[in-house]
Amino acid sequence: MSKGILHYEVGEQIDLHLLIKSSTKGIASNGKPFLTLILQDQSGEIEAKLWDANQGDESSYSAQTIVKIMGDIHHYRGRNQLKIRTIRTAQDHENVSVSDFLETAPIQKDVMMEKITQYIFEMKNPNIQRITRHLVKKHQTALLEYPAATKNHHEFVSGLAYHVVSMLDLAKVISRLYPSLDTDLLYSGVILHDLGKVYELSGPVATSYTIEGNLLGHISIMVNEIAKAAEELSIEGEEVTMLQHIVLSHHGKAEWGSPKPPMIKEAEILHYIDNLDAKMNMLDRALERVKPGEFTERIFPLDNRTFYKPSFHK
Amino acid sequence: MSKGILHYEVGEQIDLHLLIKSSTKGIASNGKPFLTLILQDQSGEIEAKLWDANQGDESSYSAQTIVKIMGDIHHYRGRNQLKIRTIRTAQDHENVSVSDFLETAPIQKDVMMEKITQYIFEMKNPNIQRITRHLVKKHQTALLEYPAATKNHHEFVSGLAYHVVSMLDLAKVISRLYPSLDTDLLYSGVILHDLGKVYELSGPVATSYTIEGNLLGHISIMVNEIAKAAEELSIEGEEVTMLQHIVLSHHGKAEWGSPKPPMIKEAEILHYIDNLDAKMNMLDRALERVKPGEFTERIFPLDNRTFYKPSFHK
Amino acid sequence: MSKGILHYEVGEQIDLHLLIKSSTKGIASNGKPFLTLILQDQSGEIEAKLWDANQGDESSYSAQTIVKIMGDIHHYRGRNQLKIRTIRTAQDHENVSVSDFLETAPIQKDVMMEKITQYIFEMKNPNIQRITRHLVKKHQTALLEYPAATKNHHEFVSGLAYHVVSMLDLAKVISRLYPSLDTDLLYSGVILHDLGKVYELSGPVATSYTIEGNLLGHISIMVNEIAKAAEELSIEGEEVTMLQHIVLSHHGKAEWGSPKPPMIKEAEILHYIDNLDAKMNMLDRALERVKPGEFTERIFPLDNRTFYKPSFHK
Amino acid sequence: MSKGILHYEVGEQIDLHLLIKSSTKGIASNGKPFLTLILQDQSGEIEAKLWDANQGDESSYSAQTIVKIMGDIHHYRGRNQLKIRTIRTAQDHENVSVSDFLETAPIQKDVMMEKITQYIFEMKNPNIQRITRHLVKKHQTALLEYPAATKNHHEFVSGLAYHVVSMLDLAKVISRLYPSLDTDLLYSGVILHDLGKVYELSGPVATSYTIEGNLLGHISIMVNEIAKAAEELSIEGEEVTMLQHIVLSHHGKAEWGSPKPPMIKEAEILHYIDNLDAKMNMLDRALERVKPGEFTERIFPLDNRTFYKPSFHK
Amino acid sequence: MSKGILHYEVGEQIDLHLLIKSSTKGIASNGKPFLTLILQDQSGEIEAKLWDANQGDESSYSAQTIVKIMGDIHHYRGRNQLKIRTIRTAQDHENVSVSDFLETAPIQKDVMMEKITQYIFEMKNPNIQRITRHLVKKHQTALLEYPAATKNHHEFVSGLAYHVVSMLDLAKVISRLYPSLDTDLLYSGVILHDLGKVYELSGPVATSYTIEGNLLGHISIMVNEIAKAAEELSIEGEEVTMLQHIVLSHHGKAEWGSPKPPMIKEAEILHYIDNLDAKMNMLDRALERVKPGEFTERIFPLDNRTFYKPSFHK
Amino acid sequence: MSKGILHYEVGEQIDLHLLIKSSTKGIASNGKPFLTLILQDQSGEIEAKLWDANQGDESSYSAQTIVKIMGDIHHYRGRNQLKIRTIRTAQDHENVSVSDFLETAPIQKDVMMEKITQYIFEMKNPNIQRITRHLVKKHQTALLEYPAATKNHHEFVSGLAYHVVSMLDLAKVISRLYPSLDTDLLYSGVILHDLGKVYELSGPVATSYTIEGNLLGHISIMVNEIAKAAEELSIEGEEVTMLQHIVLSHHGKAEWGSPKPPMIKEAEILHYIDNLDAKMNMLDRALERVKPGEFTERIFPLDNRTFYKPSFHK
Repeated sequence: MSKGILHYEVGEQIDLHLLIKSSTKGIASNGKPFLTLILQDQSGEIEAKLWDANQGDESSYSAQTIVKIMGDIHHYRGRNQLKIRTIRTAQDHENVSVSDFLETAPIQKDVMMEKITQYIFEMKNPNIQRITRHLVKKHQTALLEYPAATKNHHEFVSGLAYHVVSMLDLAKVISRLYPSLDTDLLYSGVILHDLGKVYELSGPVATSYTIEGNLLGHISIMVNEIAKAAEELSIEGEEVTMLQHIVLSHHGKAEWGSPKPPMIKEAEILHYIDNLDAKMNMLDRALERVKPGEFTERIFPLDNRTFYKPSFHK
Repeated sequence: MSKGILHYEVGEQIDLHLLIKSSTKGIASNGKPFLTLILQDQSGEIEAKLWDANQGDESSYSAQTIVKIMGDIHHYRGRNQLKIRTIRTAQDHENVSVSDFLETAPIQKDVMMEKITQYIFEMKNPNIQRITRHLVKKHQTALLEYPAATKNHHEFVSGLAYHVVSMLDLAKVISRLYPSLDTDLLYSGVILHDLGKVYELSGPVATSYTIEGNLLGHISIMVNEIAKAAEELSIEGEEVTMLQHIVLSHHGKAEWGSPKPPMIKEAEILHYIDNLDAKMNMLDRALERVKPGEFTERIFPLDNRTFYKPSFHK
Repeated sequence: MSKGILHYEVGEQIDLHLLIKSSTKGIASNGKPFLTLILQDQSGEIEAKLWDANQGDESSYSAQTIVKIMGDIHHYRGRNQLKIRTIRTAQDHENVSVSDFLETAPIQKDVMMEKITQYIFEMKNPNIQRITRHLVKKHQTALLEYPAATKNHHEFVSGLAYHVVSMLDLAKVISRLYPSLDTDLLYSGVILHDLGKVYELSGPVATSYTIEGNLLGHISIMVNEIAKAAEELSIEGEEVTMLQHIVLSHHGKAEWGSPKPPMIKEAEILHYIDNLDAKMNMLDRALERVKPGEFTERIFPLDNRTFYKPSFHK
Repeated sequence: MSKGILHYEVGEQIDLHLLIKSSTKGIASNGKPFLTLILQDQSGEIEAKLWDANQGDESSYSAQTIVKIMGDIHHYRGRNQLKIRTIRTAQDHENVSVSDFLETAPIQKDVMMEKITQYIFEMKNPNIQRITRHLVKKHQTALLEYPAATKNHHEFVSGLAYHVVSMLDLAKVISRLYPSLDTDLLYSGVILHDLGKVYELSGPVATSYTIEGNLLGHISIMVNEIAKAAEELSIEGEEVTMLQHIVLSHHGKAEWGSPKPPMIKEAEILHYIDNLDAKMNMLDRALERVKPGEFTERIFPLDNRTFYKPSFHK
Repeated sequence: MSKGILHYEVGEQIDLHLLIKSSTKGIASNGKPFLTLILQDQSGEIEAKLWDANQGDESSYSAQTIVKIMGDIHHYRGRNQLKIRTIRTAQDHENVSVSDFLETAPIQKDVMMEKITQYIFEMKNPNIQRITRHLVKKHQTALLEYPAATKNHHEFVSGLAYHVVSMLDLAKVISRLYPSLDTDLLYSGVILHDLGKVYELSGPVATSYTIEGNLLGHISIMVNEIAKAAEELSIEGEEVTMLQHIVLSHHGKAEWGSPKPPMIKEAEILHYIDNLDAKMNMLDRALERVKPGEFTERIFPLDNRTFYKPSFHK
Repeated sequence: MSKGILHYEVGEQIDLHLLIKSSTKGIASNGKPFLTLILQDQSGEIEAKLWDANQGDESSYSAQTIVKIMGDIHHYRGRNQLKIRTIRTAQDHENVSVSDFLETAPIQKDVMMEKITQYIFEMKNPNIQRITRHLVKKHQTALLEYPAATKNHHEFVSGLAYHVVSMLDLAKVISRLYPSLDTDLLYSGVILHDLGKVYELSGPVATSYTIEGNLLGHISIMVNEIAKAAEELSIEGEEVTMLQHIVLSHHGKAEWGSPKPPMIKEAEILHYIDNLDAKMNMLDRALERVKPGEFTERIFPLDNRTFYKPSFHK
């Protein structure tokens, strides 16, 4: 396989298929239109300008189109940019498809599904187990395909399931060290906490917020879903309220979107586990892009901090 | 009728039936137990000490008991206190019942119900109308009996319905001045916004929070109820999401308990109307207790401010 | 009458008189100067670029000049832009004047003045009535011409009076529902609360802040004016302090510019009424520009929120 | 002279005249009333309990009464308390008056007045000089007698003038180091900044807030006074606005009570000088009461901090 | 062994040795002194009143004295209280010592030391290993005896070492899941992060803050100690700065006492691990004291929240 | 001497040597590269564009190069810009050196050193004096050359020493007015408070943050340095902790970077003196650039305020 667009250095030439993530028309000061293309493959994305674009270019080179590009990498305002020499749309016989260009979780879907199933299997409380199994089954396809967010962390295909699986593993090792934790509540909370995103977000590609997502949010949507599941399964009892509470409170504070803060121990701990996994994901991705002895770009959801990679790290 | 306990002046004698709101045992420095009684009638409440209380007193004079008391009003630490001379429990033939001693909304329940029904009748959008009617019908008894809160505003029997009716009248006159408002959404929002309190609170007397109330809150509970109503009535369409959003956002900000801020006009306006009616209720009750030229006690939910009654007011 | 500039769609041609709101010189990357013109009529404003501008263009096409323009509407970065074909300054015989191009309150000045006079007439307290009448008379011309702000809400000719009249009507209907309110204080407070803007702002057109406005603010200026009025009318008594307090506290909190928070009931309620009318004005103007099923632009003074227009609204 | 009440140690006997600062009735658990007296002399104050107080005691030993007390100092909850053996009201022939017991500024009134006059004399701008002189003359008696606050700093007789004089001296030495400062604005600002307190506060003894003080505050009152002075002296020009602005902004931030923050250099510097003098006053008074190697009590207006007196200080 | 004082129910009699944690003198309203004793054993503490205390009692029953008490448990203001029948100081032949009454970590000191040594042994970077070993050796005795805080979490004998050991175990399992973490930095950071407490706090019993602790804090003290260790070991290189940074930043934010926020990945993760272990400790201790279906007391360092123990937990 | 670049007016021609402060490559919309040069001399800086730059230009005209430029001053977006006609690098025989173009403190280094030495000489406490002298000697060269910051205030060559000397003079006059201040602590605190900047910053020219500066900060670094100095001088005693505390707390609050707030009087006062001198420096520099009757640009570290220069100032 050829190397990803993110790994080319300034001065190198490329000759690659790339996916147009977005295409924006501008008008240059000479009055002529141009296109700003964000091009991506699985390694990341790069900006390119197409000068003197005509009407045809605008419609040919729109978002979600795969193109074949020859050009050079140069440096502009502290970032790599692609100088296009030639560009054309991909042809059928080239056998490329959109999914080849999307970043995807590093674990296969079926492996992740097996893991989740195993954790559900380990639950001892039948009410918790049945509600969890019911909801996973109901939303299985989306759970395995959706990203966990539109940006910031796990913003890639299958990001949601990947985030869940990482958190389940964390929950397990932490529960062994603090055996007073109720693993049924914790595992179920992990699996359900972000599942409302399958309603909140539009899908795995070119992800945006739905109207329901904007006006209600994944937390409230999921609290509803749990109520509905319990009703359909004729389950009554405090377990339902506890699961709803864990989902409701998992952002930790009212100002972060949880109308109630965690008020049971497993809800509090789930909030830490969620944070830990999300922050590790952000930090690893940011630090991968710098060399030892350098600082990363500012990371907005980490209070806009920049992180240093010690020079004795590799 | 005899005047209420709140209207006696220092030095006056009383000979009244009163309801024990709470009874707390203390131990005096001479080692003997005493009871601190909070006594109430419809006008308000007063503290009294019962010194040298024996085991029997403790069980006789517990919360929710009606007693006959003779005593004197005196002044202690800036507040009136009742010095008990004689106390006994009320007897059957005296024909007094707990509800005689509870503060109650100034409008009759059936009048309030009629008003609410009229507003529902005026709605034009059938989806909004049917959901609203369904939920009012389902919770009618509680809606007409519950308070709107445990303290701060409308914290009396039927306070919830009274708050709703006042807000409906406000919504109507405001909508006439700003005809772009959708009165269907606004009226329905007013009627439903606090209806989750019938789950959140324990009931009209000695009101406390339920476990569901503590861990989920009336907002999330009501969003669920709307979803359930829509499903039972087989209603689909954006109206459901809009009503859920209005309820969800009616506290105005995340830090005040709304996971989403108002994002449709009627939600924003409902937030103001709710505020206006609640604050008027607090202000009127606080200002009633002072004379012109005086300041009220500090009002906690109004940023702990004290308010002045101009000396040219009566 | 021809339709306003705001109502043209992309692709349409225009041939209109427009007022230049602002004109800024830039230098293109080819080294040649160009002008960025903001053009307006009563419907709103649009941006246009005049490329290759010469010295003469710069002086001809300055702010407050009326021009005749032929051109096309196209789309640039999510907003309409005007592509100029021909431009010339308006000529005397064309009978156009600056005021034809300014947004203006939807009610005539004399109608608004009549309304305000009527509310003053209804006041019963002679001290309050005389101070209010005196100050309205003193600043009548400006009150009827000034905007209520430089941006955000009621930022148009006669916006100040229009805001006052809307608030008076709100004050009236609210007072009927809460009869404990002192309408004298409330009406006078509404009329005077923003009147200091006639000193704070520079005038009805191309409005900016005066030095006094910047360093003292309309609140402090108006508190002075009330003191002065009372002295000139030889009025003494608590009414003067109450009116000063209402003006002083009408922003609600210290951090919003009120050195004292509301400490009388009418001051608190005026703060809500002011808010309600200002927010309705912002919301209506933002929602007018979108279609059902769309979100508005972010509205900065509404916590930068975006608002949704339900798809069942027209 | 006998030593002050603050300087007696636990175990010592006292036989002193003291002023009753406040007297509060309580009821002991044996049902008998007692009085809690706060007694003061120029050195400070001490608490005493008068057990088994009768009706006569309550009226004899009220606030602002001078009493002769014999008793013992003992320790109670980390503070000295006075155990009363005998108490009686002072008699005419004993020649004691209330002012003998009040804490007072350490400089004589006429010396302070002379200093202020000298600073006014040094002003070069006639407008600033005339306004300042006019206002000092108008309020001279109160300026020399009032405290600067009811608590926190300079809360003693003549505290206002003392604070002004200290700040003037600070302003002078700072201006010599930064000669770009306009000493006319700075000196006048210092003299006028808190002068509104003569309206805001009730007087030099048992100081409380007036209604005007509560509802308008000393800042807004003084801005008015400057306007009035300028009018009476027929002074026009930017100096008036500048002086008003300095007074208006001297609390530094909106949330600290200044509707506008400092926007001229002298206003900014005055804010620092005010702070520096007030904080020095608080710190010196708190540190006087502890020994080297100890921490002071928490000082509320200094963010509730406690301060350490280094053990190598005396 | 007899059961701990915390496990007696109301109505039970006790006959136990207990340690006086604090003894405060009060004066009853009958004028006689009494002592408020806080008595403790390893299970927790209880309050008792000793009425009519004489001079001798006050000196006999002071803090850190072991007493033999007979009495009854009763209920007062929602908490258990001990009613003393007889009290005397413990006698030599009874073979009780202060340490028998202090809460202590549930793991033996030597086991904890062995664990810490093992983690140091696993470090691969010699600079990090040598600094860590040097500092642990230098402060070994205190590290194994001090509490981790004066209150809130791990506030018991050997609490500091217990907190370190728990965190090391957490660090290990988390590092296995996120192999990009540098375990040398993480283990060393865990071991050193709170070691400055051996200077900040006064010791394992009746713990208070030292002057250095108050004025510099354990974070700054430890940053110094690392510098000193590096100098004594002649170690230069970025590892020193990294370890100092981890200690410096471990409170996470400036307002929580870290002058720099975490800026390397291991510092960020250590902050979470610290939080997780501290919060688990608080939660477990609070939840132990309530029954299923009940709420705990409010926990101040957890934003003053109360936590629910689900009724299906045992 | 020719006048500085900052003092040329629009339309004037220049023919000057200037230092390139920074040089950034851009690509124009015609696809050709250009350079944005920031040029400086001691009076300040100006922007210039070099169009159609070739490879050679990019390397010739890099930061820290001195160039000879002919060109015209014109106006662009509210700021002066330089239109380059001819540009070349300076030649050896022209005898210009980088330091000729850098802004520098207005007092000579040796004069500042003498002043600092004099203040050290006046100290009476030998521990404080020896530590201070030791550290000044150790860092003398850097202290006299470094700026006090990278931006905001005293951001010029020798700015650090100049800030120290101004503060020492302030400390002296303030201590005379408040004789309870310990001048030893205050003078030493002033001299040492920012000395850690010689590690935090990279040097006097093109100043940036070092890694140690970023991860530890000048405060923590200096606290270490004091400990080290005390050890090398074998000084023990509370003075060391006090000096460390003054440095540690000089930012005043945790959120401003001080892990402990000031807890001794001299630390509190030093914080004010630091503020006063820094703010005077910012204000003087901003006000110098505007004419009477104008407002300055917004000053970010002064809460983004703009300041007015009264029209009666010159």
